[in-house]
Amino acid sequence: MNASINYIELSKSVQRDANNRLKHLITLEGLSRDEIIELLDLAQLYVRRPGELPARDRSLSGHTVANLFFEPSTRTRVSFELAAMRLGADVVNLDMQTSSRVKGETVLDTIYTLQAMHADILVMRDSEPGLPAHVAQHVAPHINILNAGEAHVSHPTQGLLDTLTIRQHKPDIKNISILIVGDLMHSRVARSTWSALTTLGIGEVRIAGPEHLLPPANEFYGAIRYTDVNKAIKDVDVVMTLRIQKERMASAHIPDDNAYCREFGLTSARVKLARPDAIVMHPAPMNRGVEITDEVADGKQSVIQQQVTNGVAIRMAVLTQLSRKN
Amino acid sequence: MNASINYIELSKSVQRDANNRLKHLITLEGLSRDEIIELLDLAQLYVRRPGELPARDRSLSGHTVANLFFEPSTRTRVSFELAAMRLGADVVNLDMQTSSRVKGETVLDTIYTLQAMHADILVMRDSEPGLPAHVAQHVAPHINILNAGEAHVSHPTQGLLDTLTIRQHKPDIKNISILIVGDLMHSRVARSTWSALTTLGIGEVRIAGPEHLLPPANEFYGAIRYTDVNKAIKDVDVVMTLRIQKERMASAHIPDDNAYCREFGLTSARVKLARPDAIVMHPAPMNRGVEITDEVADGKQSVIQQQVTNGVAIRMAVLTQLSRKN
Amino acid sequence: MNASINYIELSKSVQRDANNRLKHLITLEGLSRDEIIELLDLAQLYVRRPGELPARDRSLSGHTVANLFFEPSTRTRVSFELAAMRLGADVVNLDMQTSSRVKGETVLDTIYTLQAMHADILVMRDSEPGLPAHVAQHVAPHINILNAGEAHVSHPTQGLLDTLTIRQHKPDIKNISILIVGDLMHSRVARSTWSALTTLGIGEVRIAGPEHLLPPANEFYGAIRYTDVNKAIKDVDVVMTLRIQKERMASAHIPDDNAYCREFGLTSARVKLARPDAIVMHPAPMNRGVEITDEVADGKQSVIQQQVTNGVAIRMAVLTQLSRKN
Repeated sequence: MNASINYIELSKSVQRDANNRLKHLITLEGLSRDEIIELLDLAQLYVRRPGELPARDRSLSGHTVANLFFEPSTRTRVSFELAAMRLGADVVNLDMQTSSRVKGETVLDTIYTLQAMHADILVMRDSEPGLPAHVAQHVAPHINILNAGEAHVSHPTQGLLDTLTIRQHKPDIKNISILIVGDLMHSRVARSTWSALTTLGIGEVRIAGPEHLLPPANEFYGAIRYTDVNKAIKDVDVVMTLRIQKERMASAHIPDDNAYCREFGLTSARVKLARPDAIVMHPAPMNRGVEITDEVADGKQSVIQQQVTNGVAIRMAVLTQLSRKN
Repeated sequence: MNASINYIELSKSVQRDANNRLKHLITLEGLSRDEIIELLDLAQLYVRRPGELPARDRSLSGHTVANLFFEPSTRTRVSFELAAMRLGADVVNLDMQTSSRVKGETVLDTIYTLQAMHADILVMRDSEPGLPAHVAQHVAPHINILNAGEAHVSHPTQGLLDTLTIRQHKPDIKNISILIVGDLMHSRVARSTWSALTTLGIGEVRIAGPEHLLPPANEFYGAIRYTDVNKAIKDVDVVMTLRIQKERMASAHIPDDNAYCREFGLTSARVKLARPDAIVMHPAPMNRGVEITDEVADGKQSVIQQQVTNGVAIRMAVLTQLSRKN
Repeated sequence: MNASINYIELSKSVQRDANNRLKHLITLEGLSRDEIIELLDLAQLYVRRPGELPARDRSLSGHTVANLFFEPSTRTRVSFELAAMRLGADVVNLDMQTSSRVKGETVLDTIYTLQAMHADILVMRDSEPGLPAHVAQHVAPHINILNAGEAHVSHPTQGLLDTLTIRQHKPDIKNISILIVGDLMHSRVARSTWSALTTLGIGEVRIAGPEHLLPPANEFYGAIRYTDVNKAIKDVDVVMTLRIQKERMASAHIPDDNAYCREFGLTSARVKLARPDAIVMHPAPMNRGVEITDEVADGKQSVIQQQVTNGVAIRMAVLTQLSRKN
């Protein structure tokens, strides 16, 4: 796919039907405050406490959800799979890495096949940008596409689950300050979370990371940029750190894990610079000892497992909402 | 397995019980006109239009379907999986490529294990001939074997879904003409579809392809053979093309995809030589631009997606029919 | 994990809650006679004859079972999967070989993630010792851990299914004699089966195998050791042979399969030395022609398929029993 296409604008437009109703979820860009709040409110109804049985209903009874993961992710695949099963859907998993392209079939033909088999909700993840919007332009009107992670561009259910987690702890979003630390340039998580929080009118967004890994200047509009995390973290209500990949460290001239942790990692000492009631977030999987220490990951301020629980709830909400025919 | 065994005769006999009732579906050879029509009629009840929820019932409630794919096929596996789930069965998938023979267990021991776990419907695909008939000779009387593709020999549910698709468009099968184009020598699809159509008394069957890829003279009895597709396609009601594999092209002295498409591919110009209301079929996955052009594959005469929909319906019908105990 | 830790003692203690109730099943060591009999009795209720539909109930409705197989095993995974499905649980499979450690996440973080997704029953298999006990120490109180095979140390559901099979044929366990043949040193099956049978007060246990593959002297307390199988098998009521691995043969100075079969394999002639009504067992998958001949494996005294059927029943019983709250 051509890198010059503006995937975000395309995604914003193709994810809505003629009545401007959301029928796919490809990007959080363009969602209204009300649309986001409606999804968060619905998800909140699906949240259960640890130790309780999970929420279940039959909203998707008779529907078929197909998981198409062109980029592997056990964690996200299982989250969508459980969300769909608990809503009574039939679920099939297609490992698109090993099987799909074996016989050289085009992705669209695979999609048409699933559609012809009456799979009506397609969850897809890809390491390249553009696939969900491309597919959305070609499927039949009754099909719903859910983006489960698209290159560095978009990960809408992660953005929503992060926002839900923040709202549970800091309901007065307009008056809070969040810091997102790490490799923002390559982070679909950061982009989607920033988008949702901005739509909800969050008080302040700060971003921090190695200079080479900060996003282009035309992105994260309104965010305050830092390269010194100790300054950035001062008095924030929410600290979210991102997964760092070794090959990215090298490109940012950071010699090793220890150096990254020392400069950008969430250590106990560093987290103490935030507000005393600040929460600590990570989209997982974590590199413990690199972008976050064990002490912080497992500490009292960490809401990382709650993010996972909210992830299933958000996916249930999105599945229910999109598949509503009215 | 010994290549000298006549797999087809063996399959015809082992797929019936002492009362001559069909208990396995290994080959379409030997099925009566009434048996085929009963399966098509039952399948037709399971067909839903695009956009409708799929048909569901509880015919297989309490039953366990095991998918054993010794040859990989996401498409066919998902079709059987959805068919079984929508009938209320429990379904388990065994990836026999990576796991089954890891510990050197014989296939029959794997089968006995599944049988002992009360899996009572075994769906199997293999690139070698003979496995389904071999297994059918050894399983307990209450087990049903479904052949989901066997070497170049048999693919009975594909033959039935092709026949159902043709019947939906051309109900007067006795008075129509079909052309099957491509590598018939290696095609289990062509063999099974030909078998069903012949049993239903189809008016005329033509076969066309590179001379080296036409079947032996003792097969496709009654079919008219062509090497010139332009002559073969003249005024037919149904055109079915087959997937061509690169290694087979070479053996037929065809230099490349373009040459194949020029000589044997379904192009718009070529399809115009058939009847104006002719339908175009392909068992998928397609090599677009080789055996079929985009224009034809996505054109108005194409019923390729309908074949996929019918595939799930046929598998539901076969599952229901075979598992009936009376 | 440190090899000096006594995994068995740790497992015995961590698998019980504060009220001494069994909440995980990691080892059969330490289970009381009553606890084992309760599980066997419950499993017996889930046993169905060949050709009958499997037992089903809704004991696990609303629960989520996650299968985590760090060591691959289609057979055992499917057995647990079917057991959980037939009790109405939602089941997810995680192939931990290819996916889990791809991104370098720790096993505990994977476990915490599943727990946060409200998966409340975790089935795990690993080729290293210690993981189930380690995980059991860290999960929330409502989670149940089932050990589906742990290095050479423990395979409790196999031990129970073997014991159930023996009890079905030889209910007077106190007065029978069993011989276990093969590579006992590396066998988790032998250890778990021995443990359960000893707790039930079995009359006599004999073990036999190549000298280099007999267990250390401080294990299998009370068992009579043999290197001559012909002497060991004399008049026993139960003969259980174990899978032998080629690399282990070499370490025991056995040149090849034939030599192993000649010295230690269960041949018809050898089995005749046992009691005429002796039963023959194998945990599968079998190396036919090595530790057991076809004639014996498929003979009248073989209960190998019954072991498989009992395996699902035992897993249903354990799942039901552990997930009972209060």
